[in-house]
Amino acid sequence: MPIAPLVRKGPLSKSLEGLRIAICQIRVFPGRPDRNLETILKELARAAATGCELAVFPEMAVPGYLIGDLWEEESFVRDVLAANDEIRAATRDGIAAVWGSLLADPGKKNEDGRIRKYNAGLVAQGGLLVDNGATSAAVKTLLPRYRIFDDARHYTSTRQIVEESGTAGRAPALDLWTLLRPFPIRREQGKSRRPVRMGLVLCEDMWHQDYPFDPSSILVANGAQFLVNISASPWTWQKNRKRHEVVQQIVTSCRVPFLYVNATGVQNNGKNLIVFDGCSTVYNSEGELVAAVDSHSDTPRDLVLTKKLPPLPLPPQNDSAELFEALKTALSEFLGTLPEERRKALVGVSGGIDSAVVVALLVHLLGPGKVTAVSMPSRFNGPTTLGITNELAANLGVELVTVPIQEMVDQLARATEISPSDFAYENVQARARMQILATLAQKTGALFTCNGNKVELAFGYSTLYGDQSGAVAPIGDLVKREVRQLALYLNEHVFSREVIPRLAIEMKPSAELSREQCVEEGKGDPFDYGTATSRGYHDEMVRAFTEFRRGPEWFLSEWASGSLEDTLMLPKGTLARLFPSPSDFISDLEDKWARFVGSVFKRVQAPPIPIVSRRSFGYDLREAMLSPHLTERYRDLKRALLARHRAVRRIAVYGGSFNPPSRHHQEIAGRLAGTFDLVIVVPCWLREDKASVSEVLPDHRRRMAEIAFSGLAKVRIDLIDMENREFTPTWKLDERMKARFPDAEIWHVIGGDLVVGGKAGRSEIQAGWQEGAKIWERLNFAVLTREGSGMTLEDLPPKSHLIDGSGLIGSGTLVRSRIASGADVASLLDPAVLAYIQKHGLYGCHPSAEGSARA
Amino acid sequence: MPIAPLVRKGPLSKSLEGLRIAICQIRVFPGRPDRNLETILKELARAAATGCELAVFPEMAVPGYLIGDLWEEESFVRDVLAANDEIRAATRDGIAAVWGSLLADPGKKNEDGRIRKYNAGLVAQGGLLVDNGATSAAVKTLLPRYRIFDDARHYTSTRQIVEESGTAGRAPALDLWTLLRPFPIRREQGKSRRPVRMGLVLCEDMWHQDYPFDPSSILVANGAQFLVNISASPWTWQKNRKRHEVVQQIVTSCRVPFLYVNATGVQNNGKNLIVFDGCSTVYNSEGELVAAVDSHSDTPRDLVLTKKLPPLPLPPQNDSAELFEALKTALSEFLGTLPEERRKALVGVSGGIDSAVVVALLVHLLGPGKVTAVSMPSRFNGPTTLGITNELAANLGVELVTVPIQEMVDQLARATEISPSDFAYENVQARARMQILATLAQKTGALFTCNGNKVELAFGYSTLYGDQSGAVAPIGDLVKREVRQLALYLNEHVFSREVIPRLAIEMKPSAELSREQCVEEGKGDPFDYGTATSRGYHDEMVRAFTEFRRGPEWFLSEWASGSLEDTLMLPKGTLARLFPSPSDFISDLEDKWARFVGSVFKRVQAPPIPIVSRRSFGYDLREAMLSPHLTERYRDLKRALLARHRAVRRIAVYGGSFNPPSRHHQEIAGRLAGTFDLVIVVPCWLREDKASVSEVLPDHRRRMAEIAFSGLAKVRIDLIDMENREFTPTWKLDERMKARFPDAEIWHVIGGDLVVGGKAGRSEIQAGWQEGAKIWERLNFAVLTREGSGMTLEDLPPKSHLIDGSGLIGSGTLVRSRIASGADVASLLDPAVLAYIQKHGLYGCHPSAEGSARA
Repeated sequence: MPIAPLVRKGPLSKSLEGLRIAICQIRVFPGRPDRNLETILKELARAAATGCELAVFPEMAVPGYLIGDLWEEESFVRDVLAANDEIRAATRDGIAAVWGSLLADPGKKNEDGRIRKYNAGLVAQGGLLVDNGATSAAVKTLLPRYRIFDDARHYTSTRQIVEESGTAGRAPALDLWTLLRPFPIRREQGKSRRPVRMGLVLCEDMWHQDYPFDPSSILVANGAQFLVNISASPWTWQKNRKRHEVVQQIVTSCRVPFLYVNATGVQNNGKNLIVFDGCSTVYNSEGELVAAVDSHSDTPRDLVLTKKLPPLPLPPQNDSAELFEALKTALSEFLGTLPEERRKALVGVSGGIDSAVVVALLVHLLGPGKVTAVSMPSRFNGPTTLGITNELAANLGVELVTVPIQEMVDQLARATEISPSDFAYENVQARARMQILATLAQKTGALFTCNGNKVELAFGYSTLYGDQSGAVAPIGDLVKREVRQLALYLNEHVFSREVIPRLAIEMKPSAELSREQCVEEGKGDPFDYGTATSRGYHDEMVRAFTEFRRGPEWFLSEWASGSLEDTLMLPKGTLARLFPSPSDFISDLEDKWARFVGSVFKRVQAPPIPIVSRRSFGYDLREAMLSPHLTERYRDLKRALLARHRAVRRIAVYGGSFNPPSRHHQEIAGRLAGTFDLVIVVPCWLREDKASVSEVLPDHRRRMAEIAFSGLAKVRIDLIDMENREFTPTWKLDERMKARFPDAEIWHVIGGDLVVGGKAGRSEIQAGWQEGAKIWERLNFAVLTREGSGMTLEDLPPKSHLIDGSGLIGSGTLVRSRIASGADVASLLDPAVLAYIQKHGLYGCHPSAEGSARA
Repeated sequence: MPIAPLVRKGPLSKSLEGLRIAICQIRVFPGRPDRNLETILKELARAAATGCELAVFPEMAVPGYLIGDLWEEESFVRDVLAANDEIRAATRDGIAAVWGSLLADPGKKNEDGRIRKYNAGLVAQGGLLVDNGATSAAVKTLLPRYRIFDDARHYTSTRQIVEESGTAGRAPALDLWTLLRPFPIRREQGKSRRPVRMGLVLCEDMWHQDYPFDPSSILVANGAQFLVNISASPWTWQKNRKRHEVVQQIVTSCRVPFLYVNATGVQNNGKNLIVFDGCSTVYNSEGELVAAVDSHSDTPRDLVLTKKLPPLPLPPQNDSAELFEALKTALSEFLGTLPEERRKALVGVSGGIDSAVVVALLVHLLGPGKVTAVSMPSRFNGPTTLGITNELAANLGVELVTVPIQEMVDQLARATEISPSDFAYENVQARARMQILATLAQKTGALFTCNGNKVELAFGYSTLYGDQSGAVAPIGDLVKREVRQLALYLNEHVFSREVIPRLAIEMKPSAELSREQCVEEGKGDPFDYGTATSRGYHDEMVRAFTEFRRGPEWFLSEWASGSLEDTLMLPKGTLARLFPSPSDFISDLEDKWARFVGSVFKRVQAPPIPIVSRRSFGYDLREAMLSPHLTERYRDLKRALLARHRAVRRIAVYGGSFNPPSRHHQEIAGRLAGTFDLVIVVPCWLREDKASVSEVLPDHRRRMAEIAFSGLAKVRIDLIDMENREFTPTWKLDERMKARFPDAEIWHVIGGDLVVGGKAGRSEIQAGWQEGAKIWERLNFAVLTREGSGMTLEDLPPKSHLIDGSGLIGSGTLVRSRIASGADVASLLDPAVLAYIQKHGLYGCHPSAEGSARA
């Protein structure tokens, strides 16, 4: 509801002209009124000495804002009130002070039965508190109670004062318009000696969009000539951008200058470190930015209000830089609470990206002499990660201590009678590492970190009392892509050189706790993480579960409507690659949801996490330990999808080396899609019987296949060979497909040449393939006719379907030889595949000679 | 403000007569609308079949109440709404149903910007929702936001509906009286066919004392003929007693029958397990209890409203039984969420009381076959605790597995280069035990428990990732006295025999992690725990910090005014015994406060705790990690106290064996108090030079001294010898006293016989005492004249003060010999001391022969 302002005085009310204001963006220490009082008195004296008429301090500048339930301790409350009184007295020489603090009225009760408390903005001048004619201070009207905010738990709001002015639930005697009035500030300087009228609001009062009224508008309508918002407003992702919009919307309607004064420093709620970024700003009555204090700076800044203030450009947004700054501030203040001699850290380094980023962050904060990297290899740690570890430590100049854990693990395994093949053996290793870190930390007076990321926390993919342990989890609110981005940012902008080895950023993450997680074999975590520059499905799933509050029903319904990939901004083809069938998609979704819900018990015992996302684990997202629940609609949707899927009757399985995948392969896939309900392309692993397959790495063939086939209608890629790192013979592939599509017909696509001699039982399939005779009789074959293959109809296996192969030009051999000779292959290859080949210099195409293949 | 009810119909409105109501006290599963819907539909059908006209279910019976932020997940909300619709439809055959659930209005917003949600009571009959003419359901008016309650975080209240009926902060168009109206329920049976008018409120609506209005009164004034309160109200200490009072207060003013229907089961907020006790009750319009459902029962109970309902006696209050039941329910439901085959537990047993209680509790819940006790001794574990462990396991019939940790600890100490004298060595042991428990737990599919109590959690007296680990901390909300009480309760009422050895209940608790914690030497934890029947100072300090929200300022000010001991209900003399001087008291207070504030970082990573107190660690008491703060007033008070203390100029140190302390000792102390500002009595340890001292245990002498001297003005007891378990020679005692009272004169009280021969340098002091010659010259002596000692004034040491010892009758030797011979000692001994001697059969006084000493 727009409110018609009563006051429309143009750009700047005359009586404000020349008003000198100290924007006291100070660092607030939570729960320490003594320290904060000292800062405030010092800054107030400085402001007075530099001729300021008004000094403005942030919300809850005296007690701090996030102090848990310490508000309930009455002597603490009295201590804060006494500090308020000292600030009041310090204005005796004329300067006006505005500061956020607790105000209490011991004669009344809060609704929790304790002393009545307000989150208030106090105003004093000439040694006296200034009232607005209705209240003795500005009482916060809108009390946030989402995310980390528990304002309504402790404070009584203006709204409640209004409400209780009614008797026994009858209509109130007061309204907000009675209470929200400007405070008069006497001017000592300037032309006008008339008091100026300041509208004072607190933090959330400005973010009024979801509330039934706008306190700022009421204040201006009640005569305020300028607005002051004092805040304890945490940094969050893109908040500054949002705040510019909100202020501009207010000022556009109110047409008065607007001051926003925010605190700096770090406060916490036990489970989260919360960064206050400052970023105090001043807007003129046109809504233009005219002054800004640097983020995280605790140097106050004076400003003289005048109509000549030139607008500043909006500060450029740099999300990576902001994120790094927030993380840096959180950690440095967290370390800053420790005594000087204890500001040192131990980081368990695994050779993976997470611990690499944490150690680099800490080296940046503390210097290399205060950080020790501890490598704790077991029998499962391979040369790749050990190599990265050495390189990382050398790059950063930190001491690298190596404490092998194998002996310790063996002993515990003996004592508890477990063997390396037991699952428990994995966690034993992680806990042995914790034991070493905890002991070294205590011995040296350092702290040790938990290097877990948000994806691991979300799915409980860590060991409680093992790698989940530590004084703080610096990157616990970052998904893997963001960890990688941070690694690049550290290399490029913080250290300006590659301190974190590129291999750590690019390789597949692995816990290296068992043979099945062997990095050397390209194995690792069971998540799709994406890369530094492209999104991964499970990363985005975690963001959706936490930041966007989406559950399985939303996922399934978006997937069914074909929009999930776009909504999550995943690279095209990601979902088709990961989930060949609806049941694959569903079983992953249900598995991940169960892990997410089922690992709350671990997160309950996790270390504190600095908040850098829209929603962090901890007390930002509050979680009960529940059993996973799937909604009725989810179950309906699932039934429908699986039933529809069962209607997919005929599936073509199209295996091959795709070396490289060429236009004729794409054409074949297209023709198959014309006949079958689904075409599943299976790029094969290395084959002993086909040397040419080994010419390029399987991973290149996988990526080229993804480029060539994803996006084709009804065509999906199955990476079974690539995942198992072995060739799957056709009989086994058939078993797998039948298990996955129990109601479908599975047809294996083969070239006509493979059946030649079939009549006599001497075809390559019968004679050369594993279980050849058996599959010849039992399996369905989609046989591609090939001109000149010599195949006769009598040669065909019992269950066959012919696919027209006429007019197809090309073969792997042809394409490879043309590339190697530098001949033109544009007509044979998809341009994206060709570009890939050129970039990586495959098949003898020299990578630096871009375009040399005359494409 | 009392509200004059419009309706005063006497005991029971006629149209209610014969109304048959099913009180559906059901077990609610949080976050599982599917399971809860099933229960509700089943009970509704049962109620209809047994002729009920109305079935009442608890608050949030469909979604559950404590589900964290799952409310934000929109598909969950829709799922709950769909379940509401099924319940509505199930009333098609006439029965009326009242149930608590979420109601949402996707067309409107909550103030968090998400879908508008209400915590509502729904009413349906004949397949249709019943409205009250103003709202389509009863919306909760009073939203609690203290302790574990976060209602205002997720729901919009009736108060907000009223408020937003105003425009832009102007006076609202509605008031509570418009919205809070009774719901009409059609009667199918009974004489009257007119609908009855039901006032429906939700949980907190009834606990209105601290709010500005009482929803129940408004409903009755608006015509409600009976009141129904549906609740999700957790069991807390003495809540039922309080609820009876609250209901009676409401009914006394409203004069209508009152139904209270509460849920059962256990819900959680991640950090706490919260027990819903049911205890649904019905009160007649006189406020008398007429029906009650058993606590924790989930069997609904039918009730026919009639004026002939006879009042029941209020159920007797049994705090211990209630506490045990709550704990039992919490644990059994926690275990119940696990699959059947995983409902088994490992408990690390130390021989201490905490682990003994936990193992006994679990054996009661799961049976001995499902519980394994794991003993993990190190070099520091002595025969006492190992003996208790064996006895405990045998008594309970559980398997006792012993896994010694010494080898493991030694190996880790080598790998990390720490030695047994390092403090880190203590925590290494605790973490080694965790590693064993965690590994065995994973291997056997069991869970393991954290056996920490509230005092340990409060002061961080446990090892993070060591003994603080476990799936749940069953006794994490009990102070030590309560643990001991629970142990007695388990023995007496649950097992009806001594399963927990008495020694475990009575001995001094110890962590046994170092030589300094040797149980065999009576050493142990640095806390005053009290006993099962008397309070300990540090126990009560923890309760004051957490449950009563008192800080150091309160403690110091109560202590200074002499009322602390009474307020905390400590045994007389406790504080004097613990703290001989103000600086002792203050340094302990500041130390404990710093530990309390400084161990938040550990509690953040603690396991979930069942709530059984007025305020539990976890998410009941919300804590930020802060630096300890002492208020300005505290610091003033401390300064004043220490200054006053410094004014204590002359102190008499009165050492002796007090074997036993007799009337003449008391008389001497009294005379000393006449001369000195403070008298410090120091009972000595065993002395090689005085065989008689060894006749009774030092502990008996200590206790008798406490009996004899505590309560005497200006007299305090110092237990330095008892604590160090060695005799402190006078030169050392003098040093200690001077360190503690730097500004005072210290005077040592001696008998005149000790100075005989002093002139010649041959007094016992000079010749026989340690550093005799030196102390003779330097120390101050208060010399007790003794008739016939042969002391001359020339014998006196240089600094002496004579104390009149005339008329004193008695000596230790005399008293002992008279007791041994059965002679009358009443004139020589304080009756309380005599009673102690008789009870323990000291000095040859046979204990069973009570009164034989002719006292």
